[in-house]
Amino acid sequence: MKALRFINGKLRIEEVPEPAAAQDVAVIKIERAGVCNTDLEILKGYHHFEGTIGHEFVGTVSDAQDKSLIGKRVVADINQACTKCDICKNGGMHHCPNRTVIGIVNKDGAFAEYLAARVSSLVEVPKDISLDKIVFAEPVAAALEIQEQLNLNTDNAICVIGDGKLGLLIAMTLDKSGYEVHLVGRHPERIERLANFRGTYQFSAPEKSYAVVVEATGNPQGFQTAMNLVRPRGHLVLNSTYAAPFEFNPSMLVVNEINVIGSRCGPMDKAVAQIASGKIDPSTLIDAQMPLEKGVEALAHAQEKGVLKVLIEFPG
Amino acid sequence: MKALRFINGKLRIEEVPEPAAAQDVAVIKIERAGVCNTDLEILKGYHHFEGTIGHEFVGTVSDAQDKSLIGKRVVADINQACTKCDICKNGGMHHCPNRTVIGIVNKDGAFAEYLAARVSSLVEVPKDISLDKIVFAEPVAAALEIQEQLNLNTDNAICVIGDGKLGLLIAMTLDKSGYEVHLVGRHPERIERLANFRGTYQFSAPEKSYAVVVEATGNPQGFQTAMNLVRPRGHLVLNSTYAAPFEFNPSMLVVNEINVIGSRCGPMDKAVAQIASGKIDPSTLIDAQMPLEKGVEALAHAQEKGVLKVLIEFPG
Repeated sequence: MKALRFINGKLRIEEVPEPAAAQDVAVIKIERAGVCNTDLEILKGYHHFEGTIGHEFVGTVSDAQDKSLIGKRVVADINQACTKCDICKNGGMHHCPNRTVIGIVNKDGAFAEYLAARVSSLVEVPKDISLDKIVFAEPVAAALEIQEQLNLNTDNAICVIGDGKLGLLIAMTLDKSGYEVHLVGRHPERIERLANFRGTYQFSAPEKSYAVVVEATGNPQGFQTAMNLVRPRGHLVLNSTYAAPFEFNPSMLVVNEINVIGSRCGPMDKAVAQIASGKIDPSTLIDAQMPLEKGVEALAHAQEKGVLKVLIEFPG
Repeated sequence: MKALRFINGKLRIEEVPEPAAAQDVAVIKIERAGVCNTDLEILKGYHHFEGTIGHEFVGTVSDAQDKSLIGKRVVADINQACTKCDICKNGGMHHCPNRTVIGIVNKDGAFAEYLAARVSSLVEVPKDISLDKIVFAEPVAAALEIQEQLNLNTDNAICVIGDGKLGLLIAMTLDKSGYEVHLVGRHPERIERLANFRGTYQFSAPEKSYAVVVEATGNPQGFQTAMNLVRPRGHLVLNSTYAAPFEFNPSMLVVNEINVIGSRCGPMDKAVAQIASGKIDPSTLIDAQMPLEKGVEALAHAQEKGVLKVLIEFPG
C-alpha cells in the first residue's frame, strides 16, 4: 500500500506492506485524514518520529479478529494504551507509560491506505456522517478536553489566544457550549470560519483581566501574551506544544498564583457526539483536499501562511 | 531611627525618620525579624526594590489612631492591600493591584526600629508567645498556602524539592498536617531540624511518581527536577521565585497534562494559630541572631552556604 512516510529527515510516498489484524488490533481502511500542526512539527524533528505520519482520520474497519467490527466506520483515540497497567486501569489511558501514539510515537500513522489500531481505541461513528466533518473528531476532542479539566463557569469570558486551526476549534467548542469567548488573533477574517460565533474577535486584550486564558498558538510570544492576560489566581490552559525551549521566568506564576494546566487529547466519544448532532461543524476550517499521492504537496501547502485545514482524501 | 536600607545597589544602616501613625495605619516597634531568601534576591536586583528591606517580623503596636491597639503584639500580612477595590472586596487582598508589599514593593520594611503597617493587615499574637517562634508567622503562612490552594488528600505521598528554609518549613507544615512527605535535597543532616518528622529524606526520587510535587529551591535545576518527578495529570506547586529567566519547554506540561500552581503568601491567622498551639515549631531552623546594627553582616551571613534562618534582634 502507499503511505506518506518521514524517514531520515525526508518526507515521501513509499510502498509498504499492509498492516495485519491481530489480537485486539483491527485494520482500518482510511477514508479521510487531516493535517495537524503536530505533523508539521514532526517534520522539524518533534518527538524524533520516523515512519508514516498522520493521526487525524476516519475510516472503515477492513479486518479484525472480531468479525462483527468489519465494515464499521470508526475514528480512534491516538493513544494506543496497553489497557493493563495501573494507570490505564485508573482511567489514565491517555498517559499509559506503555502507549504508542498513532503517527507520533512508535506507531505508523494515518496518511496511508490502511492503519492498524487497538480495538479498545476505536469509537464507532454513524455511517451517514459527513467525512469532512467527522475527520475532525481528534482535534475537536482535544478542544473539548479543556471543559473536562476545568470546572468552568459562564460568569466570566474566556480568552483564547491564537486563531490557527486549534485556536479556532477551541473558540468554536467553547462558544457552542455556552461560554463567552474573546478570541485574540491576527486574522480577523477568520471569524467567518466560526459560523454563528457569539464571541468577539480582538487583536489584544487588557492585562490581568481573564479568569481563564487558553494558549493555542504554540509559540513563545503567544505564551507570554497568555501569561500577561490571565488575572491573579486565574487559569492558563496550554493546548499547544512548542517546537523548542524558550526563556521564561516562572516567578510571575508564583507572585500572581496562576494555575497553569497542560491540556492534550480529549474525549473522542464526546467529540463524535457533538459533530454527529450538528452542535459543532468544524468543516468550515477546510482549505484544501488532496489525494494521498500528493501527500508531500499537501504537507507543504499546510505550512503556507494563512492556510487552515488541509485534508487528505482517499478513493471511496 | 536606625534602618537597614538597600539604596543604589548598596546595603547599609542609615538613620531615617520614624514613621507616623495615620488613618488605618499603625506604627509597630519591631521586636524580632527574620532574613528571607527574597531579601537576598532583592540585593541581586529582584523587584528593583530600594528602601528598608525585611518582611518577616513580630512587634508591638507603639502608636495608632485607635488607641486600643497600642501595646498589642502583632505580625502583619506583608500585602498592604487597599481593601477598597473589587479584587480586595472579593477576598483577593494578596493580589490587590494597588497594594504595596512590606520590604518588597514600594514600602519600607521591617529591618528597622519601627514599621508603619495598615491596621487591616495586622494579626494579633499572644503576649506570652516566643518571639523566636512567632517571627516565622509569615513564611509558615506561605508554606500553609499550599493546603489552602490544593484539595490535598493523604492517600499519596507529597514530594518537596529543596531543603532550604522554605522547603523545610513546607515539609514541616505538611508533615504536621498529616501528609506523608518525601523531602528531596542535598543536606540530609537537616532532617534533624524537623523535630519528629515522620516523612523521608531522599537525594532523588523516581520520575513521574508523585501526584503532588512542591518546588521550593528557586533554581532552574530544582524546577526541572520537579517537572520530572510529577506524574501525568499531577500537580506541581511552585513556591519560590526565580532570580532570572531560564530556558524551558512547556510542551512537557501539555503532553503530561500537568497542573502547575503558583503559591505565595498564605493565611497569617492560621500560621499564628499553628505556632501558638505548638503544632509547628519553626525555631529549629534558627542558625544565628544578630542585632540590627550588624544588619549588613547578618545578610552576608544568611548568604553563606549551609546557613538557614538568621534573625535580627532588637533591644527589649
